[in-house]
Amino acid sequence: MQNSGGSQPNNSCDIGVIGLGVMGKNLALNLADHGYQVACFDLDAKRIDAIVAQDRNENGADSTRIVPVHTLEALRSSLVSPAVILLSIPAGKPVDMVCEQLIAAGIDSEDVIIDTGNSLWSDSVAREQRFADKFLFFTTAVSGGEVGARFGPSLMPSGSEKAWERVGPMLRAIAAKVDAETGKPIETATPGEPVKHGEPCAAYIGPNGAGHYVKMVHNGIEYADMQLICEAYQIMRVALGMSPGEIAAVFRRWNQGPLDSYLIEISAEVLDQQDPETQQPLVDVILDKAGMKGTGLWTAVSALQTGSPAQTIAQAVFARSLSALKSERVEAAKVLAGPEVAEVNEAQREAVINQLEHALYCSKICAYAQGFQLMNAAAQEQGWTLHFAEIAKIWRAGCIIRAVFLQSISNAFDRDINLPNLLVDPFFAEQIATYQADWRATVALSAVQGVACPAMMSALSYYDSYRTAVLPANLLQGQRDFFGAHTFSRTDKPAAEKYHIEWSDPSRPLQLI
Amino acid sequence: MQNSGGSQPNNSCDIGVIGLGVMGKNLALNLADHGYQVACFDLDAKRIDAIVAQDRNENGADSTRIVPVHTLEALRSSLVSPAVILLSIPAGKPVDMVCEQLIAAGIDSEDVIIDTGNSLWSDSVAREQRFADKFLFFTTAVSGGEVGARFGPSLMPSGSEKAWERVGPMLRAIAAKVDAETGKPIETATPGEPVKHGEPCAAYIGPNGAGHYVKMVHNGIEYADMQLICEAYQIMRVALGMSPGEIAAVFRRWNQGPLDSYLIEISAEVLDQQDPETQQPLVDVILDKAGMKGTGLWTAVSALQTGSPAQTIAQAVFARSLSALKSERVEAAKVLAGPEVAEVNEAQREAVINQLEHALYCSKICAYAQGFQLMNAAAQEQGWTLHFAEIAKIWRAGCIIRAVFLQSISNAFDRDINLPNLLVDPFFAEQIATYQADWRATVALSAVQGVACPAMMSALSYYDSYRTAVLPANLLQGQRDFFGAHTFSRTDKPAAEKYHIEWSDPSRPLQLI
Repeated sequence: MQNSGGSQPNNSCDIGVIGLGVMGKNLALNLADHGYQVACFDLDAKRIDAIVAQDRNENGADSTRIVPVHTLEALRSSLVSPAVILLSIPAGKPVDMVCEQLIAAGIDSEDVIIDTGNSLWSDSVAREQRFADKFLFFTTAVSGGEVGARFGPSLMPSGSEKAWERVGPMLRAIAAKVDAETGKPIETATPGEPVKHGEPCAAYIGPNGAGHYVKMVHNGIEYADMQLICEAYQIMRVALGMSPGEIAAVFRRWNQGPLDSYLIEISAEVLDQQDPETQQPLVDVILDKAGMKGTGLWTAVSALQTGSPAQTIAQAVFARSLSALKSERVEAAKVLAGPEVAEVNEAQREAVINQLEHALYCSKICAYAQGFQLMNAAAQEQGWTLHFAEIAKIWRAGCIIRAVFLQSISNAFDRDINLPNLLVDPFFAEQIATYQADWRATVALSAVQGVACPAMMSALSYYDSYRTAVLPANLLQGQRDFFGAHTFSRTDKPAAEKYHIEWSDPSRPLQLI
Repeated sequence: MQNSGGSQPNNSCDIGVIGLGVMGKNLALNLADHGYQVACFDLDAKRIDAIVAQDRNENGADSTRIVPVHTLEALRSSLVSPAVILLSIPAGKPVDMVCEQLIAAGIDSEDVIIDTGNSLWSDSVAREQRFADKFLFFTTAVSGGEVGARFGPSLMPSGSEKAWERVGPMLRAIAAKVDAETGKPIETATPGEPVKHGEPCAAYIGPNGAGHYVKMVHNGIEYADMQLICEAYQIMRVALGMSPGEIAAVFRRWNQGPLDSYLIEISAEVLDQQDPETQQPLVDVILDKAGMKGTGLWTAVSALQTGSPAQTIAQAVFARSLSALKSERVEAAKVLAGPEVAEVNEAQREAVINQLEHALYCSKICAYAQGFQLMNAAAQEQGWTLHFAEIAKIWRAGCIIRAVFLQSISNAFDRDINLPNLLVDPFFAEQIATYQADWRATVALSAVQGVACPAMMSALSYYDSYRTAVLPANLLQGQRDFFGAHTFSRTDKPAAEKYHIEWSDPSRPLQLI
């Protein structure tokens, strides 16, 4: 038992949490909700006081769920051995610094440190090697924002299996839960009451780095998903002349169908929101310069480097960069002509909206296909065995891209564990076959009407490229051999044989290089 | 004077060349053509013999233009002091190794080493610092392939101004030349005879790194340009059912108009080429898996990292990655449905071809606009002063993207040295205004017909995004604030002020964070 107020840490706490910002505090409270006694440390003593106050306020003055500690030494001695310590601190150098300080504070080689930040996956790999004989370095990427951290995030844990055995029960306990029957998130019945049954959205991903990589791709997909929704909004707003409220109603309708997802749901809520100051739709008062924190960019860079065509994700990143050039755009809008556009009448409007729903759905399938294709390419490069059906499952609840749709993805990888691309799964192939005419019509409309749809267009060209047996890369290889003697392979010879033609004297036979 | 055969190097040579592969040999011969005595070294003695033999064969047995040397010490002692040594060796570690060996061989701090390889620009920056007190490290990126190296490449030199004073006359001498009146490359009258008059395609770019950066972006633009041409080919081939020979004829016609360029010219030649073995069009025998060497990828990564929306360049890189998935595509083609397509009749065909010409032209303008925008962003980040009118000029001849069109780009930056984007230059704005309807019709056609046009579509969405004063990034910022409390700015308040709304209780006033 722990003294109330925790002035004398004993060795009874189950887990320590370092960093009591929004995420760390909520993860600590979530752990406490599930019966773990949590020692809490932050450099800012006020944050320690705050979490204790919140716990005592909610659970009575004699609650010992949260144990305040004011030094790393006290943190360590408050914990059962071997210890488990969870870090919720900014990614990058701070993680290394705190690890060094914990070594100085006396942690040993059997203790587990779990990094929960948005670390770059390759940093996690390096960190495990660096601290190999000092402690067990483990990571879990956390998705779901502050509410997720408090009542059930989606967790992507990775590191040694030995560490996973220790921390797995804790992480599964605090994760979001899914109804095994419906595949839908189990909503908490009483607000503030965590869900304790259902399938947990936490599964062991693989060796260190794998979990953060998977989370990075999750975020890349999230960028694409958000951008696609924004493009659908823009078509309705500009080409169809609809109001934010009308568009919110359409999103709510779509949320009953295959697009059913958290992001569609909150888009409707954003569009319905009035600005308390001006009483205008809030969306019209929000400055259209998108911010970003890096994970989408990392995904696009990794896609380029692994040679995996995640072009819709990259387009979503570029769309944010372009939005940031607000003052240039405002000037350009004055001098750059748009097309002459025929107005869409009332009768056409409903048809266009229906096409748009299918365009968004098909584009979304492509964005997810790209994300899973990228994880597959990275896994091959890194020697990871990733279980894509499991990964899709842990994204069904708790995280930003949670959607019914992820159950279909999980099913696809259950049907074929070696599926090279989601597009060729029978279910998704059939879905796109059914809806592609609407998708194509929507892209054509946006081209002719001058409404920018970079992500939707890139998704369509991804689909059309992937299903093309002979791409014009043959002409491209001819160009490269012409100007740079880069050689080419022949369709009627083994691909490993490289040929060159003397372009200045093409009567000469091809040379096998 | 030099002994014939060069067994006794003296200190009369003007420049040394290390690495006698295709590029190094041709640069050495080019220097010799312009009156410089060139000491030549390679680890492979056969290559040394070969260049000497070629020189004696072409210029008589007593030619002393090329002086063979067999050690780096001999190379150094063959040169006037301070020495100039040009490296034509693989990028990366070999450059550092040879630099170290040259230090051991006795070069001093006044000597200049010029790296001509495809080095990563940031490596060049690091190298200059590393060798700062050992010698003057200078670079010049070289474009134009083997023929360019021999008779006139486009050169992008960078490094200290002190080194430039020494090597500038040599580099200007060997560079491609442009007719100042017409802006067109001066073709050599007699094959093999270098051009010695006209405006040289070599201008000082800036501090070390700047030249390789500019060359990297050149290559990124080249990727986009090639991909766009391939897409135009594919539309004619697939949607219009034309033969390679018919398409070559169209390219030759286009080469008389604003698309006049080396890449269009060689595309026609590639398409006209028959396979000597099968007598089929060679393009149909070439395997459609595109290779790449890295510079296009580096450009796309740099664009992501600087937040500069070079999306058409990125799409071109992804198109190459996707082409490499040949066996997946062949399987996917069997199971993924395309659209039902109405055949284009003879009468429509000519109209579609004319639209396509304009679509290609508008897309090309966007690809170049993205490249210059990226160089501008990088220059601001690195503190370089880049002269874009000059850069466009040195690309008018000698390099792969050489085209009449670059004169128009140079003129645009001459009109406005601070032009934020090529698109808003009056000439280019007017060109796109004139042709955009055809561009939009082409993109719509390719969407409906199922011919993948990732680069053309991304160019159109770049144009339409850039000319849009209010993008749907306002909804995106709303989504981000909703799920992650990422805050947003208001259109009616200073952009630096960040707001957050309590989405769970939106009746509460906005918080200024």
